[in-house]
Amino acid sequence: MLIVMKANATDAEIDAVVRVVGELGYRAHPIPGAARTAVAITGNQSPVDSARFENLPGVAETVRVSKPYKLVTLGLHAEKTVVRVGDATIGGDELALIAGPCAVESRDQAFAIAEAVRRSGARFFRGGAFKPRTSPYAFQGLGEDGLKILAEIRDTYGLKIVTEAVDEAGVDLVERYADVIQIGARSMQNFTLLRRAGKSSLPVLLKRGLSATLDEWLLAAEYIMSEGNYQVVLCERGIRTFSQHTRNTLDLAAIPAVRRVSHLPVIVDPSHGTGKNYMVTALARAGVAVGADGLIVEVHNAPARALSDGAQALNLDQYEQLVSEVRAIFEVMAPAVVS
Amino acid sequence: MLIVMKANATDAEIDAVVRVVGELGYRAHPIPGAARTAVAITGNQSPVDSARFENLPGVAETVRVSKPYKLVTLGLHAEKTVVRVGDATIGGDELALIAGPCAVESRDQAFAIAEAVRRSGARFFRGGAFKPRTSPYAFQGLGEDGLKILAEIRDTYGLKIVTEAVDEAGVDLVERYADVIQIGARSMQNFTLLRRAGKSSLPVLLKRGLSATLDEWLLAAEYIMSEGNYQVVLCERGIRTFSQHTRNTLDLAAIPAVRRVSHLPVIVDPSHGTGKNYMVTALARAGVAVGADGLIVEVHNAPARALSDGAQALNLDQYEQLVSEVRAIFEVMAPAVVS
Amino acid sequence: MLIVMKANATDAEIDAVVRVVGELGYRAHPIPGAARTAVAITGNQSPVDSARFENLPGVAETVRVSKPYKLVTLGLHAEKTVVRVGDATIGGDELALIAGPCAVESRDQAFAIAEAVRRSGARFFRGGAFKPRTSPYAFQGLGEDGLKILAEIRDTYGLKIVTEAVDEAGVDLVERYADVIQIGARSMQNFTLLRRAGKSSLPVLLKRGLSATLDEWLLAAEYIMSEGNYQVVLCERGIRTFSQHTRNTLDLAAIPAVRRVSHLPVIVDPSHGTGKNYMVTALARAGVAVGADGLIVEVHNAPARALSDGAQALNLDQYEQLVSEVRAIFEVMAPAVVS
Amino acid sequence: MLIVMKANATDAEIDAVVRVVGELGYRAHPIPGAARTAVAITGNQSPVDSARFENLPGVAETVRVSKPYKLVTLGLHAEKTVVRVGDATIGGDELALIAGPCAVESRDQAFAIAEAVRRSGARFFRGGAFKPRTSPYAFQGLGEDGLKILAEIRDTYGLKIVTEAVDEAGVDLVERYADVIQIGARSMQNFTLLRRAGKSSLPVLLKRGLSATLDEWLLAAEYIMSEGNYQVVLCERGIRTFSQHTRNTLDLAAIPAVRRVSHLPVIVDPSHGTGKNYMVTALARAGVAVGADGLIVEVHNAPARALSDGAQALNLDQYEQLVSEVRAIFEVMAPAVVS
Repeated sequence: MLIVMKANATDAEIDAVVRVVGELGYRAHPIPGAARTAVAITGNQSPVDSARFENLPGVAETVRVSKPYKLVTLGLHAEKTVVRVGDATIGGDELALIAGPCAVESRDQAFAIAEAVRRSGARFFRGGAFKPRTSPYAFQGLGEDGLKILAEIRDTYGLKIVTEAVDEAGVDLVERYADVIQIGARSMQNFTLLRRAGKSSLPVLLKRGLSATLDEWLLAAEYIMSEGNYQVVLCERGIRTFSQHTRNTLDLAAIPAVRRVSHLPVIVDPSHGTGKNYMVTALARAGVAVGADGLIVEVHNAPARALSDGAQALNLDQYEQLVSEVRAIFEVMAPAVVS
Repeated sequence: MLIVMKANATDAEIDAVVRVVGELGYRAHPIPGAARTAVAITGNQSPVDSARFENLPGVAETVRVSKPYKLVTLGLHAEKTVVRVGDATIGGDELALIAGPCAVESRDQAFAIAEAVRRSGARFFRGGAFKPRTSPYAFQGLGEDGLKILAEIRDTYGLKIVTEAVDEAGVDLVERYADVIQIGARSMQNFTLLRRAGKSSLPVLLKRGLSATLDEWLLAAEYIMSEGNYQVVLCERGIRTFSQHTRNTLDLAAIPAVRRVSHLPVIVDPSHGTGKNYMVTALARAGVAVGADGLIVEVHNAPARALSDGAQALNLDQYEQLVSEVRAIFEVMAPAVVS
Repeated sequence: MLIVMKANATDAEIDAVVRVVGELGYRAHPIPGAARTAVAITGNQSPVDSARFENLPGVAETVRVSKPYKLVTLGLHAEKTVVRVGDATIGGDELALIAGPCAVESRDQAFAIAEAVRRSGARFFRGGAFKPRTSPYAFQGLGEDGLKILAEIRDTYGLKIVTEAVDEAGVDLVERYADVIQIGARSMQNFTLLRRAGKSSLPVLLKRGLSATLDEWLLAAEYIMSEGNYQVVLCERGIRTFSQHTRNTLDLAAIPAVRRVSHLPVIVDPSHGTGKNYMVTALARAGVAVGADGLIVEVHNAPARALSDGAQALNLDQYEQLVSEVRAIFEVMAPAVVS
Repeated sequence: MLIVMKANATDAEIDAVVRVVGELGYRAHPIPGAARTAVAITGNQSPVDSARFENLPGVAETVRVSKPYKLVTLGLHAEKTVVRVGDATIGGDELALIAGPCAVESRDQAFAIAEAVRRSGARFFRGGAFKPRTSPYAFQGLGEDGLKILAEIRDTYGLKIVTEAVDEAGVDLVERYADVIQIGARSMQNFTLLRRAGKSSLPVLLKRGLSATLDEWLLAAEYIMSEGNYQVVLCERGIRTFSQHTRNTLDLAAIPAVRRVSHLPVIVDPSHGTGKNYMVTALARAGVAVGADGLIVEVHNAPARALSDGAQALNLDQYEQLVSEVRAIFEVMAPAVVS
């Protein structure tokens, strides 16, 4: 923590700041500058609360120096975490492909899509049984019946099931039927849910919130890890900006940004990240090219009849084309990613 | 719903759109324009799913005309809702003042602040027992012990208690000890929580999410109301923007925007809305001047020692000054608000 | 400037940073922390270029401590600047009211509006002769003919004329016919224009850019002042955010934020700040309540026939009502503003 | 244009809207819906001014259907424009690479970098002689002397010169010494400058403004084209959002969005788009993968000594690596881009 004094701060005011630092058990280092003095704080084990200083007389502002997270950092774990789901991995040598419908709508629909997903070589099937919907009048998912269909798909095709939980009871159910707990963007700061997922033995796919900073996203992962579950995969899915040609603005720079501070694998969701069918493949290519560990993509056998998010779902042919294009880029990329 | 065709759409493509509209049981109204044709849809009782059209050949875009909510609208209830909490009101003739610490930290702290809040003439006391914190390592509130302190304050000072619930179990507890369930910005789209609050007999204070549009916020209220609880108060508390001189950007235009479509009362939180002690009173004045039904303000007897959000809390003198300033404006305002 | 080292930075890397600081002629102060070391820099007269450090081995990030502007600050000039335009002032004891049409469309239109503006007691008339329009096909203003009409209004009603210049040639013309040079939001970082305005003897009304931070806005004022023109008025007119219920999001917290660092007067534009007729008066009240030195408001004698921005213009009755409401608040406010 | 009436609009109010449409010479098509009536307008040659309707009694809102631009659209010109600069192209079969320093600082610096750029096979050299800087105290470029150095580089290496003009006088100079006029993000809505560039015989590289929507960006191109200059290249360089791990948020979805409506070529600037050296290559790969026609990249022979934007400049080795990686992706991509 650095406390920057106002240009006209008096010596008494600076002394007062130094005194408060001492009272808190830390060491103060006053650094006189040309225009104004700053006071650095050392000796703290946990973050210093800036509020203790911001309203003291003569203080202009406080600057946080240390990051507030630990378990997610490369400092703790220098190599990238490889999340293992049976014999499949996320963060390892293969490109993790997670594909499927936004929502499980029926056994027929889910199986038709799963067939194509399996054929593409993807290892993970996604599909929502509990859908967080903006409107109370929209289709909310099939609930446990949807999970049973997903479990059947796992048995039939050997695909690992990734599905969302929106509350603690949902985590119980996902644990019973699926392989990876998805935590959606709107739940990224549902701390009760994060803690519950942190107590699970299943890996967690943690989507970035619509307006989450990098630090907030990593701290959400830290919540999960602080309960003992270290199998966390981050997922960039677009942020909310003024821009209106997409549903969200896909922030691909988040991938190198995560890499620089964290050992956790990170994937890209080009479907929610754009909300437009015609853009999904282009942004999927970009996601692989930027160095993501995988993709999560919405696919539907009849997008125009989808009960949710049909506008962004690929049909089966488009999906097949996407897989072929991203695999080509991934192969070229491999050395770059490693470097 | 309006379906706008591309400039070069063929007659066959337009016919196909008309046919799909018919299949869905609606009526299609093709409107040829100078540059391109649009197809209007009527006859739908619920929102039309744009996905059914967006990927049809020749379609440029779809435009939603109807709003997706009902219970919150002036169409349903032309007069402003007055939320009654015992003998106090929000949305009635008086300016609703809700004040207190961010978090209940101890009996002494809470009582010292409550004393000042009571003296100011405010009818509501706020204080968090369950704090949603960005970091798992930050102070998370006293839990049920905090609620017990709040209940004592109610008994001692006759103040109505406003306190946050972050999950279903939390609502159970708030119902036992307090008067108004607060749903925080990070929980605005926690639909499990909204539904639970919708089944409560207590009024709900619903904060706007950090990146919530007006429609999303109103739909969150619609979730609560669709379960039968019509006692909802909206609260503008700042949105996330690029701007960095405040913690959030307080969007005061949301107050007239809500008024224009909804009968629900709406208040302003200048504390979270700015995050800076020195701005709170100025924005509180502005909130009253813009026509809000009340304010929720953080007050602390020793802001520099606060365990959370101290940087934005007013001390007792500052709070007293705020109340005097906003009351003066409210008195001048009264006819304007009515008009 | 503070240079924060990575947790695993070596002593040699820290030494290298210290050496570069020395080479630049500054002093380095290494401050070892629990987790990582920071190096503070003192002795610099002008801002240190962070680029010299950001890519050095072992450096995690750099933190700027000093602000990059001087002339706009309270450090230079502790009392608020009062901008004088003949016998009218902005930043003094009176509430500065600037009103008029978005664009001068005809002599009749401008005079009809000016008549009402004069009657309201406002001292300033606004009206655009050169309109920066998003589309090349939209009405671009009457040019010099518009300025001549404005000069006539000045002579007839004694109103001071505020009008926009979009390039250097425009400043020449505004100097010939008007009293205050307006620099629009889209021109806030047109540095050629800022420098030209800085050489004028007329005061400058500088609108905040759509995505300008506080620092960028103040630096734009600094450009003008660095050429010798100290008569600058800042104007908050809304920023671009995700929010879609208004044309822009009016950031009223910018007013106390400016006050805290700068001596320049600051006014509010509730017309562009909302873009919606029905909100203008409410936000005008809020602008005065937050402590602005004045308002700039769009008024039209026939808003539905306005050639630009008619959706936000008040008609003459609405304008009269606005003036009466904001004056009532300003009177109540006076002591608060002073304090 | 579609005019949506309020749910409780009276027949007389709807009739009044129809009447105004008729007075304007257009045709009105009332479409009664379940909840409310909409009135569609046809027969207009140019955009209808929504202001004429928004404040009429009973009107809820207006919805624009037609786009406000023409010359930039695929409707006008179905094939992608190939911008030719001597024997080099942008938008053709080759990947256009534009590289060089942010600012020309000296003959030695510029030649050292140009040598490497030439060696990489790039056809374009970038370098600023007139730098728009946020602070009046920052290095502003060498001016005409810088342009002379650039002209020498053209003669020596056969590289085409891309350099920025910030005002009309600057365009005169760029025309004398260089090959492509760059218009920077801060100038995207400097309409005087756009018109001047529209009268030039040189191609124009038009960067997207920090807070420009797709429509605003295309309309800026329309300004240039409406003056007769059809050689326009668009450049995505990041937008301003709440996100703070980058200097700007690179919006790669803008590339397919432009493709869908416009024939103009579009390139990506990963340097300004991130502002961080360590991210540039990753985002350059993503830019090519998403389907951009080229890249503009900042390179410096000694980034730590750069007089501007050094934090984002690649050194010569990093640049060489970038070129090799993006070429590999471009080769894989070729069929996808074509499709």
